[in-house]
Amino acid sequence: MLNKPNIVILGAGYGGMITASRLTKELGHNEAAITLVNKHDYHYQTTWLHEPAAGTMHPNRTRMPIKSVLDLNKINFVQDVVVEIKRDEKKVILENGELDYDYLVIGLGSEPETFGVPGVQEYAFSKWTVNGAREVKEHIEYMFAKYNNLAEKRDELLTFVVAGAGFTGIEFIGELSERVPELCDYYDIPREKVKMYVIEAAPTALPGFDPELVEYAMNLLESRGVEFKINCPIKEVTKGAVHLADGEEIKAETIVWATGVRGNSIIEKSGFEAMRGRIKVEPDLRAPGHDDVFVIGDCALIINEEINRPYPPTAQIAMQMAATCAHNLKALIKGGELQSFKPEIKGTVASLGGKEAIGVVGSRKLFGSSASFMKKMIDNRYLFLLGGPSLVMKKGKSPF
Amino acid sequence: MLNKPNIVILGAGYGGMITASRLTKELGHNEAAITLVNKHDYHYQTTWLHEPAAGTMHPNRTRMPIKSVLDLNKINFVQDVVVEIKRDEKKVILENGELDYDYLVIGLGSEPETFGVPGVQEYAFSKWTVNGAREVKEHIEYMFAKYNNLAEKRDELLTFVVAGAGFTGIEFIGELSERVPELCDYYDIPREKVKMYVIEAAPTALPGFDPELVEYAMNLLESRGVEFKINCPIKEVTKGAVHLADGEEIKAETIVWATGVRGNSIIEKSGFEAMRGRIKVEPDLRAPGHDDVFVIGDCALIINEEINRPYPPTAQIAMQMAATCAHNLKALIKGGELQSFKPEIKGTVASLGGKEAIGVVGSRKLFGSSASFMKKMIDNRYLFLLGGPSLVMKKGKSPF
Repeated sequence: MLNKPNIVILGAGYGGMITASRLTKELGHNEAAITLVNKHDYHYQTTWLHEPAAGTMHPNRTRMPIKSVLDLNKINFVQDVVVEIKRDEKKVILENGELDYDYLVIGLGSEPETFGVPGVQEYAFSKWTVNGAREVKEHIEYMFAKYNNLAEKRDELLTFVVAGAGFTGIEFIGELSERVPELCDYYDIPREKVKMYVIEAAPTALPGFDPELVEYAMNLLESRGVEFKINCPIKEVTKGAVHLADGEEIKAETIVWATGVRGNSIIEKSGFEAMRGRIKVEPDLRAPGHDDVFVIGDCALIINEEINRPYPPTAQIAMQMAATCAHNLKALIKGGELQSFKPEIKGTVASLGGKEAIGVVGSRKLFGSSASFMKKMIDNRYLFLLGGPSLVMKKGKSPF
Repeated sequence: MLNKPNIVILGAGYGGMITASRLTKELGHNEAAITLVNKHDYHYQTTWLHEPAAGTMHPNRTRMPIKSVLDLNKINFVQDVVVEIKRDEKKVILENGELDYDYLVIGLGSEPETFGVPGVQEYAFSKWTVNGAREVKEHIEYMFAKYNNLAEKRDELLTFVVAGAGFTGIEFIGELSERVPELCDYYDIPREKVKMYVIEAAPTALPGFDPELVEYAMNLLESRGVEFKINCPIKEVTKGAVHLADGEEIKAETIVWATGVRGNSIIEKSGFEAMRGRIKVEPDLRAPGHDDVFVIGDCALIINEEINRPYPPTAQIAMQMAATCAHNLKALIKGGELQSFKPEIKGTVASLGGKEAIGVVGSRKLFGSSASFMKKMIDNRYLFLLGGPSLVMKKGKSPF
């Protein structure tokens, strides 16, 4: 190339942000033009959203202006929505314009997986975004506030259903169950009026977690009043109710959908070969047949050879992919070897609200406050990787 | 009477609380048995509720446990709902029991006046209670939170209609309009998306107020984006819309009804002769033909001879009635002259949100921060009358 190459990064999630941040350090001003495209002018930490959704954290603590962490003298930031990727023309169509690229990084993140259950889009909360989390929180509080004003009490106002006992569902009900006594106190509601259900189609909660940890989590949540329905698929969601495959109907004005995610619909719309919106990438993270397109984060599919199943779409893997992606872009532009991506799972910790959590770090199982401590350290480590010590000071979580 | 007489006070509003408080001071333990009946175990200041309703004050600041201000060694407190007064049997029927009385004080407060407009009960917020205020606040915030999550934006989510430009309507829109910039900031909403209407059937806002003050208030509120529709009766409220007599329809998901109050329906149900739920009382505040029944506060009707119209149902008058009522009860029991009630209107101040207010104190007109200062002093004075300096310290408003 005669001119410096155009690198376009789509999405300012965990993957896109770390890629952009690394590239500004590894490539000089004259070596590449870097453009980052994102719908909002802020980045947010998806993995923290169960807290503002339940109302246990100010939503602004989960987000930051992009300009506050990336040097916008070195990166061209475009606030817009991606409509389609025209691979043959090496072009990205945005709602309000288009961008040419020499190298593309797709980090568009995920969408809720509904598994085709009717009514989810219409009658359940499924958006794990800042906007989505604020809506869930305000809806919950509105239901509490409304209850005492009705002449005939409707108990479904105080019934909360979480569909999915995976990571997100468990972390959300952990926060909510921790907050319920405070909500009852604030709104003059007898504690026993509040019902919480977690409904899971699989034969266990937290599939993939150590059974001892799963039992700890379930016992703890049950002690806070959560009722689990395991091995119990949902057939349909209607206005104010979930209908289970076994015929039971649970009336609930608040239904939170957390059965996992699929890749981004832009992937399929743009003609990439994909499985549930995810591209099975080459070892160097490029899309098969596309030397100029990297795919990272929840849009990338990588098989864990040990168990012959895909790695789960986590922030941890997205950040590791971003490091490899930034290295490989540098190699393509400045010369050098492309690396193969090797995920290194350092640990997984699920918070359960308050000072409670469970997790595995290395080969060690953690419970209670030591797991909660580790969870906060993991959250802070991400901020450190992204913005150094000052971002940890500003946005970090005190583990003490 | 051989035994000490039973005094039963219905309602722990401004009138009931001050009556109870005075009686414990003026009558000894052996001179009367005093019972106070109230739906909740707390007293609240109705005239402060526009603040928690708009979200500018914690709702608990507008209420206090009854036991924290009245000495329940001297007063028998019954938490129950009044169903009917059986005058001939000198008995009060409660939801969960009944009470015999020798003397009855009716201080049951008011109910919203709908003027027969269809749809108000179903589709508008009309309850000026702690529960009602919390519901309005949470509904407003839920609308803001919901807006950005809809693919097709519905502007009626951000349209707020107040029916009635009287005291309550103006004070509420004052708080809300003051808070809107903060709400827009919090929920990422462009300020111009929010619409606020105040709709009034009468030919002026704040009828009875000095025109110069009314103009000041309207100009101020308009500068914050409030649109007034004066001389504009509402024909009907439907789900998400108000229909004006002139044919216009305003779509709004939040409709707050504040067109004034009528007396309590228990009055009519119990067979008292009443006008819109209010009993035209004798000068000594007793119900005509009932030597044993006092009526105070919003259930009592007294004509202002100067203008040949009823005095408005205000906290100020309710408290003054309570003082006369307590004096007259003491006179009946211990002997002495019964007083005639003489309202003394010391002043009226309407808050407009933030540091703004308008009012008349004595013959002096007040605007802006001096009116706001006076409003806070009036609110504190009530707390002082009820619970002395310690209650002012605990629940009062800093005028500085």
